[in-house]
Amino acid sequence: MALPPTLTWIGSVDGHLDIIDQRLLPTELKIVSLYTLEEVFDAIKTLAIRGAPAIGLTAAYGMVIAARTISPSSQSAVLIQVLIEAAEYLKQARPTAVNLEWAVTQMLKQAIAHRAVGVRSLMIRLLEEAQKLHADDRTTCHAIGEYGQALIPDNAKILTHCNAGALACSEFGTALSPMYAAWNHGKRFQVFADETRPLLQGSRLTAWELAQSGVDVTVICDNMAAWLMKKKGIDLVIVGADRIAANGDTANKIGTYGLALVARAHHVPFYVAAPSSTFDLSLKDGGGIPIEERAGDEITYGMGRQTAPHGVKAFNPAFDVTPAELITGIITENGLIAPVNREKIREMMGE
Amino acid sequence: MALPPTLTWIGSVDGHLDIIDQRLLPTELKIVSLYTLEEVFDAIKTLAIRGAPAIGLTAAYGMVIAARTISPSSQSAVLIQVLIEAAEYLKQARPTAVNLEWAVTQMLKQAIAHRAVGVRSLMIRLLEEAQKLHADDRTTCHAIGEYGQALIPDNAKILTHCNAGALACSEFGTALSPMYAAWNHGKRFQVFADETRPLLQGSRLTAWELAQSGVDVTVICDNMAAWLMKKKGIDLVIVGADRIAANGDTANKIGTYGLALVARAHHVPFYVAAPSSTFDLSLKDGGGIPIEERAGDEITYGMGRQTAPHGVKAFNPAFDVTPAELITGIITENGLIAPVNREKIREMMGE
Repeated sequence: MALPPTLTWIGSVDGHLDIIDQRLLPTELKIVSLYTLEEVFDAIKTLAIRGAPAIGLTAAYGMVIAARTISPSSQSAVLIQVLIEAAEYLKQARPTAVNLEWAVTQMLKQAIAHRAVGVRSLMIRLLEEAQKLHADDRTTCHAIGEYGQALIPDNAKILTHCNAGALACSEFGTALSPMYAAWNHGKRFQVFADETRPLLQGSRLTAWELAQSGVDVTVICDNMAAWLMKKKGIDLVIVGADRIAANGDTANKIGTYGLALVARAHHVPFYVAAPSSTFDLSLKDGGGIPIEERAGDEITYGMGRQTAPHGVKAFNPAFDVTPAELITGIITENGLIAPVNREKIREMMGE
Repeated sequence: MALPPTLTWIGSVDGHLDIIDQRLLPTELKIVSLYTLEEVFDAIKTLAIRGAPAIGLTAAYGMVIAARTISPSSQSAVLIQVLIEAAEYLKQARPTAVNLEWAVTQMLKQAIAHRAVGVRSLMIRLLEEAQKLHADDRTTCHAIGEYGQALIPDNAKILTHCNAGALACSEFGTALSPMYAAWNHGKRFQVFADETRPLLQGSRLTAWELAQSGVDVTVICDNMAAWLMKKKGIDLVIVGADRIAANGDTANKIGTYGLALVARAHHVPFYVAAPSSTFDLSLKDGGGIPIEERAGDEITYGMGRQTAPHGVKAFNPAFDVTPAELITGIITENGLIAPVNREKIREMMGE
């Protein structure tokens, strides 16, 4: 792929995090550098970087950035305290995707486990851990791609929603990884991308990265999916996930639930692709997943233009929950979970 | 209502047609005057005026404008020929809504029936006929409102798609008319308006006219409808129609079909509101309805901004067809058709 990396740590523990500012795509490919915890928080909050795995990794590097603010002569206990506060702060940036929570928890566990080594060594250890999570994500996405590509027949028509591609991860993506893998295996197919209102991650990001990679892609408005299935035929839907409960209920970008209902009505297989870190086995079902509501002006002042009367109300949930029974299978780095139920999930997660 | 009329004929047969330029709402309320047949065609084609009943009326006045281009000393046969050509031309502006075809056919029948009166008198007769259709539309919309308001419980939550309101008709609207009538009967309720991509008739027009009239309205993105039904509860959906086949299959703005599927999954009653002129009994089912496809840049350059990579493909059907079995009832000026089937429709249409 000819895509630049979504995020890259530059230099030693005193370095910084470079990310693609995804708010500017597809018209501008700009790298911004994050040096402070507040910059990391804002980048996640304002969707300069987004996608469940990518915000997890960004938050992990954010913990490194938080750690190095303290004096090298401090006690480890001070560092741990700073990290606990940083973790709480970062988790508030976006509440739905569990990967963020998971990543900062991993970092915190490392810090506590190695607290005896002294502050400077601990900072270096934290950077190594973030880089390990980053490398693991690459491996995970690659494995999802290989398991998922088996589900894509040659000449398939595939529909996806939002962006769960390379831009949402370290590389390859989750929902798009099977498409890249299938393409590399020589299969040819057509991808339809829901534009994904209000922030258009489908038309701005998915169409961009697929087109950059030479994959045949067509943009539709979200409300065209049902008619597309009926008139053009769609062989399968693949989407990403922000949090998956123990029974398989899946939170993902708003619109996923409606798409799953429409797929069911047309007997179109509906797959979710996600790493293990997206599962939240502490929740028995999707009812417990916190759903972020964002400002109404993302809808009413879409794309910098006023598109609704001044002062009109808008309802803007950023995610919805698709019940497990509408999901044909969940593609993970350990293989395919199908049918989707509590037992199969427990089995795959080795718990 | 405090709304200005959607369209108004100004003056005698030598006058002109004033319309609200709906492309500029909600930020600018501008009246444009149409003097020539080409201006009428362009206003319909570019959606300066839109909505099945409104484009029918605009085309009827367009026939008056076409008629008066010929010399008063011409033979009636010349006028008839000009009108036949004008009718064919106008029908090409937008193929899906049958009301346009219906209106120009009504005008043509009048011209043929009164061809003996001489050209100047015939022009006046045509203007009277257009004004009669215009007045009939007002009566029709009012009747739809009264039949429809009975379906709206007090404190209801209602969802609508696109704009089938006053702006789509002479006054009151079709889908919105029951809401205006219920409001005038003292009922209070909440309306949710799908923004309706790509051209945002829901957020730009429906939200504008409901807010102008004091009705409680909240805008959502089209892909939020399923989650809205699940989380907030919706009591009924009411939409308009562009063409209804003899069995009740209904063409309406793209997204209607998916919305009907989602409503069915949540057991939410799904109503279509439309005048008799929207029925096309020559078509046995929705398979024969022509579906307009519009330029892809309505999606990829939405709201004047580039929202997808340059050159990326887009699929942009302007309408879809909702099968009769997903429709709870059709509200017409003659009463409610429910259940929706060939026999009930034939009965209501008196055929």
